[in-house]
Amino acid sequence: MNKIAVGVLGASGYAGRELCALVARHPAFDLAFAAAHSRAGERVRIAGRDLTLTAADNAPLDRADLVFSALPHGASAQWVAASRAAGAKVIDLSADLRPGNHTASPAAAEPAYSNVPYGLTELMRGKLAGADVVANPGCYPTAILIGLAPLLLRGLVVPGATIHVSAASGVTGAGASPKTDLMFAEVVEDFRAYAVGNAHRHMNEMRVVIQELGGDNDLLFTPHLLPVARGILATITVPVTETVANPLCLWRDLYNGEPFVEISDTMPSLRDVVYRNVVRVSAMYAVNVRQPTMIVIAAIDNLMKGAAGQAVQNANVLFGLDETTGLPA
Amino acid sequence: MNKIAVGVLGASGYAGRELCALVARHPAFDLAFAAAHSRAGERVRIAGRDLTLTAADNAPLDRADLVFSALPHGASAQWVAASRAAGAKVIDLSADLRPGNHTASPAAAEPAYSNVPYGLTELMRGKLAGADVVANPGCYPTAILIGLAPLLLRGLVVPGATIHVSAASGVTGAGASPKTDLMFAEVVEDFRAYAVGNAHRHMNEMRVVIQELGGDNDLLFTPHLLPVARGILATITVPVTETVANPLCLWRDLYNGEPFVEISDTMPSLRDVVYRNVVRVSAMYAVNVRQPTMIVIAAIDNLMKGAAGQAVQNANVLFGLDETTGLPA
Amino acid sequence: MNKIAVGVLGASGYAGRELCALVARHPAFDLAFAAAHSRAGERVRIAGRDLTLTAADNAPLDRADLVFSALPHGASAQWVAASRAAGAKVIDLSADLRPGNHTASPAAAEPAYSNVPYGLTELMRGKLAGADVVANPGCYPTAILIGLAPLLLRGLVVPGATIHVSAASGVTGAGASPKTDLMFAEVVEDFRAYAVGNAHRHMNEMRVVIQELGGDNDLLFTPHLLPVARGILATITVPVTETVANPLCLWRDLYNGEPFVEISDTMPSLRDVVYRNVVRVSAMYAVNVRQPTMIVIAAIDNLMKGAAGQAVQNANVLFGLDETTGLPA
Amino acid sequence: MNKIAVGVLGASGYAGRELCALVARHPAFDLAFAAAHSRAGERVRIAGRDLTLTAADNAPLDRADLVFSALPHGASAQWVAASRAAGAKVIDLSADLRPGNHTASPAAAEPAYSNVPYGLTELMRGKLAGADVVANPGCYPTAILIGLAPLLLRGLVVPGATIHVSAASGVTGAGASPKTDLMFAEVVEDFRAYAVGNAHRHMNEMRVVIQELGGDNDLLFTPHLLPVARGILATITVPVTETVANPLCLWRDLYNGEPFVEISDTMPSLRDVVYRNVVRVSAMYAVNVRQPTMIVIAAIDNLMKGAAGQAVQNANVLFGLDETTGLPA
Repeated sequence: MNKIAVGVLGASGYAGRELCALVARHPAFDLAFAAAHSRAGERVRIAGRDLTLTAADNAPLDRADLVFSALPHGASAQWVAASRAAGAKVIDLSADLRPGNHTASPAAAEPAYSNVPYGLTELMRGKLAGADVVANPGCYPTAILIGLAPLLLRGLVVPGATIHVSAASGVTGAGASPKTDLMFAEVVEDFRAYAVGNAHRHMNEMRVVIQELGGDNDLLFTPHLLPVARGILATITVPVTETVANPLCLWRDLYNGEPFVEISDTMPSLRDVVYRNVVRVSAMYAVNVRQPTMIVIAAIDNLMKGAAGQAVQNANVLFGLDETTGLPA
Repeated sequence: MNKIAVGVLGASGYAGRELCALVARHPAFDLAFAAAHSRAGERVRIAGRDLTLTAADNAPLDRADLVFSALPHGASAQWVAASRAAGAKVIDLSADLRPGNHTASPAAAEPAYSNVPYGLTELMRGKLAGADVVANPGCYPTAILIGLAPLLLRGLVVPGATIHVSAASGVTGAGASPKTDLMFAEVVEDFRAYAVGNAHRHMNEMRVVIQELGGDNDLLFTPHLLPVARGILATITVPVTETVANPLCLWRDLYNGEPFVEISDTMPSLRDVVYRNVVRVSAMYAVNVRQPTMIVIAAIDNLMKGAAGQAVQNANVLFGLDETTGLPA
Repeated sequence: MNKIAVGVLGASGYAGRELCALVARHPAFDLAFAAAHSRAGERVRIAGRDLTLTAADNAPLDRADLVFSALPHGASAQWVAASRAAGAKVIDLSADLRPGNHTASPAAAEPAYSNVPYGLTELMRGKLAGADVVANPGCYPTAILIGLAPLLLRGLVVPGATIHVSAASGVTGAGASPKTDLMFAEVVEDFRAYAVGNAHRHMNEMRVVIQELGGDNDLLFTPHLLPVARGILATITVPVTETVANPLCLWRDLYNGEPFVEISDTMPSLRDVVYRNVVRVSAMYAVNVRQPTMIVIAAIDNLMKGAAGQAVQNANVLFGLDETTGLPA
Repeated sequence: MNKIAVGVLGASGYAGRELCALVARHPAFDLAFAAAHSRAGERVRIAGRDLTLTAADNAPLDRADLVFSALPHGASAQWVAASRAAGAKVIDLSADLRPGNHTASPAAAEPAYSNVPYGLTELMRGKLAGADVVANPGCYPTAILIGLAPLLLRGLVVPGATIHVSAASGVTGAGASPKTDLMFAEVVEDFRAYAVGNAHRHMNEMRVVIQELGGDNDLLFTPHLLPVARGILATITVPVTETVANPLCLWRDLYNGEPFVEISDTMPSLRDVVYRNVVRVSAMYAVNVRQPTMIVIAAIDNLMKGAAGQAVQNANVLFGLDETTGLPA
């Protein structure tokens, strides 16, 4: 069988590098090009093969069957359009085409992109199979929405109530560009909240999907920066209408047979998930509160299930491959 | 002036060591003894002076004007009683005598300890001045209650609503005894929640004090273990009855002139507070929520303002010294 | 083809766990048992399969074609004997049977073990093929001897001169038992030398092999403890008899075609090698010294090429498999 | 008494910030200005006082009795000249005026600077007292030369032999400018050598001073980058002409009464010295080597005794103050 020719745009960022490595090891993919504006011409070694980074402008889009765009938000949509015009299917890892973000760039505002399926694979698989373009979810939304979905779909969340999410991410979530705030000497032994008060750019994406999943709920989301390289842990508190005897069954039922969702009796931690394309979830009820409340904990590797891994998972769906092909479980 | 003779019980734990160092550098204190059951007889060097650790049983309690007990919960109350009997004033760093914990040990259950003042200095100063025994607050409660107090005392918290707290602590908060879970190779690059669902032993302490401060509110508290040595950051979300123009003024008014409370326009982080006896607080309203909600962030060093530092601060009050004596601001 | 039945002794240590995971993923191996004295009866999940840890005494040695012993030094040799008596081939990861260590235990002192081949695969392959028992090298010796070999074998080291090695290891090299010195709060932000003055137990092993490789040299070895979980970096300075134009060619020649030795133009770092079964080496001459001197830098993952990975590599040789089978390059 | 007016040039780097904090807390110093080109106009809070950073061009040099220059190498010497012209005494923390570096900039090459005393306080105190300008030592040289001096001054180092130094530094030693290599995600869990083969710019400084201290020796110096914020550990191996019964006495004799040199029976580690203006040293002989060899371990905080702390120590000498004034021991 001919391999599927794959291009990566934005190959020098953390998600882009992870994509290149996954593509290079994928048995059905062949890495056609890796484009990185700032490092064009540089020779890199990925998964045992030498490769020259190209500029996006020079990327042979027409040779690719599939393009992953890991370009920055606002800059990605136009390259999705260019890749489509050249005949490739596209997985867009930026926020440009995600629910609630379609006006991020002029290209993203075009009608063609008003209904791009959202690649939260486990929940949206039906809409992905025949698609040409997929909006790959953000890292925080992946952890939080996979964690929340069983409660939302079963109508167990108190209507109108606020869902509280406190989450923390490793520094690769903040990008690979050198910034003072992300220097080792600033981050080590530190911990801080950011985008406090619902200011994070993933808010719209989560709000829209919560609604699609049947929730009439506000979201209060506080992200934090962790002194670790990779991983996201989301602590989600949900006011519920009733309590059930074995709450983990709600997750076990919905995600039955899913290769990339792990339901755990013990609380998941980053060590459980780093370098793996999984969401690991646990949940329990709080004691000593008048309003019945469930605490859901979800952990992912922000670069794997939160970015490059899920992108490959979606690409596997688009091309009719086994969903686990080329992905570390 | 004669120096105040000070004994430290539980001197080999992290809080105990910090206490010894603070006492040794305190201009009005003289370290009379340092007791550590498991390391009795060991010679240690504290702040430039050599000292032999003693067993608590052999500690010359009668030579001390003041005893700090950093013994474990459940084991401390009896030594508070013994120290009092020997004529010393006592600051108890354990939970034994704190609000909501009086049955932790038989000694703690005695009527004499039913009304020990709670040493959250900034809020309880009036009750401390003439006291002989002080229950030094827990580390999480210190950060959280100092953060919440202005909203509670002004009656701005929605009655009956749940206050959500997500907090994270460095590993010195988990004690100095060697445990597999606290080994470097297990903690580095990890992050996890613990005591999920309101199971933390500080819950009662916080609930009682919230009520004392006028709050009719449930608390939902999820602590996390951070890969850092020291520091606590608490992220507190509070449903409020009304919004005000300059919310930080609520904190600035209540803590006006307080040497150990810092109100900050930017969100506090652990780097701002480690090795210092301060609580650093900021707050802002959330956008895009139907229920007006304030997010309060409070940071402390768990071993300083969260334990040994506040204990010395309280001791300064008991002995009529300037509250800042011997404490790093 | 029937799979090779593999047992692991000492499965709860860091090397033992890594071995279990490698065996579980190895296409030609089947994990027959995993024994861990202190955790016997515990149910663990390894590479997606549930497994109950057994006590070594109850391990079905006779069902194994191959036994890996990751037991502590001194305790391992007797289990090598028992495994051999039960008919299994054995890879011993302890020091018991390594060169210079044969008196570590009574069992190790027996004549049968006086000539066990030393599993530094790239250099000793000829002696391994028909062996029944292999002494798997220590972590430091693996990095250092692979780094030194080209200079020694070509006779380029000044006879009688001292070879200086300063090396640093992540904390998994110190074992998984909880010790105060290895707690997160003690190791983070620290760095220290240990076994200073040639006191490390790997000294004999290295001295004997250096001699076998033709060196008449003293070794001065100072190990350090790094605040990282895994990885060893060895900085080796070697007085040389002559300088050559392209020194890296010495390594490229000797290790030509080796899948697990990487020669690098840039200085190797831990990030280059963690989670991989490789030694990465670079070398250059020092300037401004009268005695021509080469500095060799070698990096490995102490749990992979320094322990479990090399053990599987050796097992592949024993059973006539491709040497890279089941190993991450 | 009037306070000494002190200016700091290069106040935004790590050493500059540490200097500002030390000056602000120094009982005899008054911070007259803090200049930082890249952040001129910014308002900062240092040790409880608000301060506006100025551009060096606008710094009121004539109002300063003392100027600390923490400007980059090559850029500093001209500001030393300007500060002198304005009447201030100067401590230069750059390499410009240090032994072996006088041609770093045209200003440094001037005869006036050919004989600036080298501020390795404990060894050079006699030359400092009446000086107007002091070249503050580099961080690595401070640790290494304090460690080596007793052996050199007593003539115990084998003439002509090479002294091997393997040292490791925290990332603040690499400066505060954002660089990809120094980002948290690149440094955490990594360790690497740099400037391998005697390429470090501190080489000349160390070589010249070793000669001044009586050594006829080559130096082979390999620095490494540690995943910690601060601290330097130097492991020094020295071929010696004879062995003595109590080798630590060599250090105890030379540094008898020194407040900032600690001789330790156990091997020093970074935890022993961070945030303190000390060098901590230990030493022992190696076993199993034909050439008698001593291993000396020296640890410092690179920003304190390795930069800002020693600069203040030297300033105390220049102004006739007690050497320990304003310095944490």
